[in-house]
Amino acid sequence: MKAAYYQGNRTFTIEEGTQEPLLPGMVRLKVAYCGVCGTDVHIYHGKMDKRVQLPQVIGHEVSGEVVEIAPDVTSVKAGQKVAVRPLQPGEADPSDNGNTHIGKNLKFIGIDSVGGMQSYWNVPAHTLHLLPEALPLHIGALIEPLAVACHDVRMGELQKGEYVVVIGGGPIGLLIALVAQFKGALVLISEPNAKRLELCQSLGLQVVNPMETDVVKEVESFTKSAMADVVFEVSGVQAGVQVMTQLPRARGRIVMVAIHSEPKAVDLFRFFWRELKLIGARVYEPQDFEEAIRLAASGVLPLDKLITQVSPLKDIQQVFETIDQNPAGMKYLLDCQKS
Amino acid sequence: MKAAYYQGNRTFTIEEGTQEPLLPGMVRLKVAYCGVCGTDVHIYHGKMDKRVQLPQVIGHEVSGEVVEIAPDVTSVKAGQKVAVRPLQPGEADPSDNGNTHIGKNLKFIGIDSVGGMQSYWNVPAHTLHLLPEALPLHIGALIEPLAVACHDVRMGELQKGEYVVVIGGGPIGLLIALVAQFKGALVLISEPNAKRLELCQSLGLQVVNPMETDVVKEVESFTKSAMADVVFEVSGVQAGVQVMTQLPRARGRIVMVAIHSEPKAVDLFRFFWRELKLIGARVYEPQDFEEAIRLAASGVLPLDKLITQVSPLKDIQQVFETIDQNPAGMKYLLDCQKS
Ligand SMILES: NC(=O)c1ccc[n+]([C@@H]2O[C@H](COP(=O)([O-])OP(=O)(O)OC[C@H]3O[C@@H](n4cnc5c(N)ncnc54)[C@H](O)[C@@H]3O)[C@@H](O)[C@H]2O)c1
Ligand SMILES: NC(=O)c1ccc[n+]([C@@H]2O[C@H](COP(=O)([O-])OP(=O)(O)OC[C@H]3O[C@@H](n4cnc5c(N)ncnc54)[C@H](O)[C@@H]3O)[C@@H](O)[C@H]2O)c1
Ligand SMILES: [Zn+2]
Ligand SMILES: [Zn+2]
Repeated sequence: MKAAYYQGNRTFTIEEGTQEPLLPGMVRLKVAYCGVCGTDVHIYHGKMDKRVQLPQVIGHEVSGEVVEIAPDVTSVKAGQKVAVRPLQPGEADPSDNGNTHIGKNLKFIGIDSVGGMQSYWNVPAHTLHLLPEALPLHIGALIEPLAVACHDVRMGELQKGEYVVVIGGGPIGLLIALVAQFKGALVLISEPNAKRLELCQSLGLQVVNPMETDVVKEVESFTKSAMADVVFEVSGVQAGVQVMTQLPRARGRIVMVAIHSEPKAVDLFRFFWRELKLIGARVYEPQDFEEAIRLAASGVLPLDKLITQVSPLKDIQQVFETIDQNPAGMKYLLDCQKS
Repeated sequence: MKAAYYQGNRTFTIEEGTQEPLLPGMVRLKVAYCGVCGTDVHIYHGKMDKRVQLPQVIGHEVSGEVVEIAPDVTSVKAGQKVAVRPLQPGEADPSDNGNTHIGKNLKFIGIDSVGGMQSYWNVPAHTLHLLPEALPLHIGALIEPLAVACHDVRMGELQKGEYVVVIGGGPIGLLIALVAQFKGALVLISEPNAKRLELCQSLGLQVVNPMETDVVKEVESFTKSAMADVVFEVSGVQAGVQVMTQLPRARGRIVMVAIHSEPKAVDLFRFFWRELKLIGARVYEPQDFEEAIRLAASGVLPLDKLITQVSPLKDIQQVFETIDQNPAGMKYLLDCQKS
């Protein structure tokens, strides 16, 4: 078996992986595809060297096939296709309030522990969701980010017919926009990158380029002055935070999806003035994975159009370099059997 | 009749008021008491000279007695005691989404139009809420700020048995704390002013001085590590905003009551990380006034203890000067028949 090891310093090496023994509760996967997430790029940039343990196999957007199960596992069997929900809950903390998916002692598999950028991968059985036979495995690798989008839309309590603005048309923002649109919302997506904007538009979304157009005015005209019911902040930049409070109508909602590692200036007056709600959303719960799989299997979303490139695992170094040079791409997949 | 005119430049004058004709829909009140709100002090400081039209009678925390009604008014009659909900909705805007109490064209009576710091006052009949005979009129002047507190607690969806932290023990924070405690919450209030802290404590509230004690640690111990279900930010300062995101448990709520006139640095990461909610709350709806009146009439809250001083209207200049010099006071009332 082969595995890609992040070595620090923007470097991956491909090596013979180690086949760990299958402990109780664990399942061995033959990894099909592993998507590259923004967080993986963050790791590649050395920003999380304190959290990952070098050298480490990373990757958490995985589809694969069950090849072996520990004797106590009954939830899956060999030969089944699965997607991985890469969350390992830790000991419950009183402040978790029962929310295991964001528990204080939660470990994120593929960041805090070994990930899926290898040809075989041992994962806890409880992380697995069965994929329908008809769902191609490269689409299966999009289930994890699609589950993020399903979770965000659910946390935003989106209703059919509502006006939605998505700030940021990266993979997550685009998936949120597609899910919201499928659920009957009227969606406008704001994205400065011309190539990404074009892709959004080609998928039937209304778009605005915040570098060229006043987003507030655009939302006024898009909503016939009703303004947005729900705004998703998925850009992660101050400009997104600045505009997010200007777009909702009275009692409108803003879903905070982006990870803002530094405090940002927020117009708290607008929260008071228009009784806005800000709703934090992180990863997913099992039901979001189930919904993502249903959506993907039903074929209602143009998920294949999000895939910029599928590369053999052995080319991982080049893939990360390409992503760095080409921010116009959307989703890069690694074919983990080609190594 | 007498009226106090704000003249700009920290100056009030007492003059013979003008008895306006009673237009359709209007009611003439004999004003009993008018409380001094932080906003009135803001006006006195010249911070709102663009919004008020000098010289102007201000004041919006009013109790009084109906003395005359326009021929078309049927909702009240002469002799009845009332509190005033000082909101004049304007034309509905599509972005209001039906929320008339925070409509785009809303006027706040006593700021955007003539207020209650005078012996007689014409107000729209729709702003009036009947006070029970047994409710003393000086307590009636606290109904408006108490309705703010009822609204804030309602917007926070507070449940019995929940842990609550109130940041800021001014009149509004203290009223929120009392209402929350009455509703069965376990309440801790954070306030740096020693005199105000003492008052909160003497009313049976758990207190913490953020200048002396680490509020996060205090909340940990107060909640046995469960952390807060609901946090009310009522301080209006950056230090309050800084700590508000550190106190809630997973999926906890932060109610933004304070008016932050400038953008503040907010730890948006915490919203993502713990799926927190920020809920803006502004003024009140009719049901909040009804609840405030029920609470006040039932005598379950020590409202009289919040009244620092009752002064004749003619002493208004001195009252505002006292408030400026003595931030340790809580609620100052003007007796509008003593002029
Ligand atoms: N909540 C979660 O659990 C979760 C999960 C995955 C990702 N995330 C976060 O969501 C965010 C988006 O993820 P992604 O992978 O799509 O990232 P990304 O960086 O690919 O997308 C961000 C997009 O915002 C655009 N942008 C930049 N300035 C903008 C502006 N002023 N207005 C509008 N758009 C602007 C960028 O061009 C880019 O396309 C990141 O912050 C990521 O960390 C959160
Ligand atoms: N949402 C609404 O409709 C509404 C209505 C009325 C008032 N308000 C706003 O609510 C806020 C409170 O009103 P108020 O009349 O009680 O004002 P206030 O200024 O009397 O009270 C604020 C309190 O916060 C305290 N404080 C200062 N620094 C602090 C810190 N670091 N931690 C904790 N407390 C700190 C102050 O000592 C003071 O007692 C104001 O911002 C006001 O404008 C909002
Ligand atoms: Zn990811
Ligand atoms: Zn007020």
